[in-house]
Amino acid sequence: MELRLLTALRAQNPIVFNIANFVTVQDVANGLNALGASPIMSAEVQEAETMVQIAGAVCINLGTLTELQIEQMRVVGRLANQYHKPVVLDPVAVGAVPYRKRIAQELLTTFDVAVIRGNAGEIAALADMDWQAKGIDAGTGTGDLISIAKACANRYHCCVILSGPTDVITDGTRVVQVHNGTPLFQLHVGSGDLLSSIVAAFTAISSDTFEVAQTACLVLAASGELVASQLTADRPATFTVELVDKLSLVTVPEIEAVESLN
Amino acid sequence: MELRLLTALRAQNPIVFNIANFVTVQDVANGLNALGASPIMSAEVQEAETMVQIAGAVCINLGTLTELQIEQMRVVGRLANQYHKPVVLDPVAVGAVPYRKRIAQELLTTFDVAVIRGNAGEIAALADMDWQAKGIDAGTGTGDLISIAKACANRYHCCVILSGPTDVITDGTRVVQVHNGTPLFQLHVGSGDLLSSIVAAFTAISSDTFEVAQTACLVLAASGELVASQLTADRPATFTVELVDKLSLVTVPEIEAVESLN
Amino acid sequence: MELRLLTALRAQNPIVFNIANFVTVQDVANGLNALGASPIMSAEVQEAETMVQIAGAVCINLGTLTELQIEQMRVVGRLANQYHKPVVLDPVAVGAVPYRKRIAQELLTTFDVAVIRGNAGEIAALADMDWQAKGIDAGTGTGDLISIAKACANRYHCCVILSGPTDVITDGTRVVQVHNGTPLFQLHVGSGDLLSSIVAAFTAISSDTFEVAQTACLVLAASGELVASQLTADRPATFTVELVDKLSLVTVPEIEAVESLN
Repeated sequence: MELRLLTALRAQNPIVFNIANFVTVQDVANGLNALGASPIMSAEVQEAETMVQIAGAVCINLGTLTELQIEQMRVVGRLANQYHKPVVLDPVAVGAVPYRKRIAQELLTTFDVAVIRGNAGEIAALADMDWQAKGIDAGTGTGDLISIAKACANRYHCCVILSGPTDVITDGTRVVQVHNGTPLFQLHVGSGDLLSSIVAAFTAISSDTFEVAQTACLVLAASGELVASQLTADRPATFTVELVDKLSLVTVPEIEAVESLN
Repeated sequence: MELRLLTALRAQNPIVFNIANFVTVQDVANGLNALGASPIMSAEVQEAETMVQIAGAVCINLGTLTELQIEQMRVVGRLANQYHKPVVLDPVAVGAVPYRKRIAQELLTTFDVAVIRGNAGEIAALADMDWQAKGIDAGTGTGDLISIAKACANRYHCCVILSGPTDVITDGTRVVQVHNGTPLFQLHVGSGDLLSSIVAAFTAISSDTFEVAQTACLVLAASGELVASQLTADRPATFTVELVDKLSLVTVPEIEAVESLN
Repeated sequence: MELRLLTALRAQNPIVFNIANFVTVQDVANGLNALGASPIMSAEVQEAETMVQIAGAVCINLGTLTELQIEQMRVVGRLANQYHKPVVLDPVAVGAVPYRKRIAQELLTTFDVAVIRGNAGEIAALADMDWQAKGIDAGTGTGDLISIAKACANRYHCCVILSGPTDVITDGTRVVQVHNGTPLFQLHVGSGDLLSSIVAAFTAISSDTFEVAQTACLVLAASGELVASQLTADRPATFTVELVDKLSLVTVPEIEAVESLN
């Protein structure tokens, strides 16, 4: 695992332009900032070109999409392609809401993305494979997670992160799984949103998307695991506070000491 | 008090669709999640029908209403009635802003609500009774809180929670007061928003609205009281973190041990 | 330094109407509330006049501006002038985004502001002076901060706070610098937004804008410094929680004991 990317990210402080959802936007901004990236959130299409030019990468999150925001997503995605800035797509709730699935698929034909990051239900929906989603949560399905992630990656010609207790990362051919983490991530609203934006931050500093995706998953999952190991009870809000702290403080050797991926 | 509803909520993990205000939305989502419910926030009317179908209940919060959002509220409220999903209305600042009072009253003629949750100034305004509101805060008035709450409940044919240091809960005839709580709730922006969404979560699992309202008030007020009893100073942000933690950890016996209602 | 203004603010609990950015709005609301002010966030122009009438001051933050919000800013700014409510402008990212600079300058011709609060890159941009901004951050420039702040103040006939490790405060003639603070403010997204809204809170209780600006900078910077001095590591999220706590608890003698300004 190329944890040198973490050192590089902190040295380079890349700007991530987030089309964010308004529920978790503050935690995502704080998490990016703590890690060593520089978050920008912008909602106005008139400044889209400048924002894309300034940014090292773009993260498009469908969490609280509106028709107005979808138009911004189209413009920003195309501009990002034009300026060769990598795009990460977070297809929130496409497994549960047909309207969102239609929008996500339309966006995926409008511009190229480097990485799609979703839970099992979301990735399965984009791959048109069977999975039972519940609301915005992943749901419980019986599909084979690796097959689902590969199918999605091959269909959209990008890297896919199917995140959950184990994160499955694939470029359509190669597969790596990150086994680190803690159940507290499920108690913290916006863990997935934060992961997507952290992935974007790493895409800004390396073009090896498959490696970037692994590094991002590992850094966040291991940080959460390290925090959880110090908590004496399942305190979701304390976990959030200490997770953001840890993103600032965590060292490469600390992560290597708990790293569990294959 | 039927605290078995708390156990049932945690077992059933109901989805609450919130038309939220953007100030406190993250705390509300985290609080619902910690308690054992599943929050959805959506802003796009095109997905309103799916969201209502997915959800067990709807919470409509006027906190940062816009003309666009009001149209969404109308659609969602009508759909919720059609699909028999209970609606909780949080009429933020209707006591201070005539425009908001007009909107709230129009919404209350557009669809039926199960519960209105507001502070004294807000409930008095909806009941067209006298009270002095200050900004978005409750203000200090001399009206009789029980009379105000009953008048509001009878006018809109719903359960009313007039929350404050003592929560007054009425279906227009019966009245229960929850005396638990802590002054720290006043220092925490969004205590009322969180209560309204927690009420909605309980309405998703029981049709006894009067009991639901009591349980929701008691669970939140007792959790806050338990947290405050451990704090050595009035730390509003620490209180918020520990309140969300407590919503995850609090047990029925813990609540019963401090329960003060009549 | 007139720290009696802090005592007065807590006694008077002024209402601050914020046209906020949606990234940091919750922290800003909590910070204002903890300090002893009463935050209102509103997004609908139909209620603008009531909100301005209710409020003691207005803070306009360009952080996540949209065309719709800019129209609200114009209306609110004019109403604030009409009702003699002081306006604080936070020109987020005008140093990096030409569109934002154009909007900010147009707003500054549309209504009078009492205080502009920005970082070096933002204030330099408004003054049309040379500075290197990076994204939404201040950037590193070689301009003389005092000259830049004075030029901006003279151009827009208002008080200017150029905030950073040292805050430079000027009315165009007089200059005071606040040296308190901690590098943790840079790790906390929204420190500047919070400062701007705290400035607005103080403008609501005193017409001596130059003194108000100093007091606001000192209260926030000293509170942060006091919190940081108790932390054993750079924990950005813990810092945020404890900063908001401190805004509630900090006393005049505590601030006087660390006060460093000239």
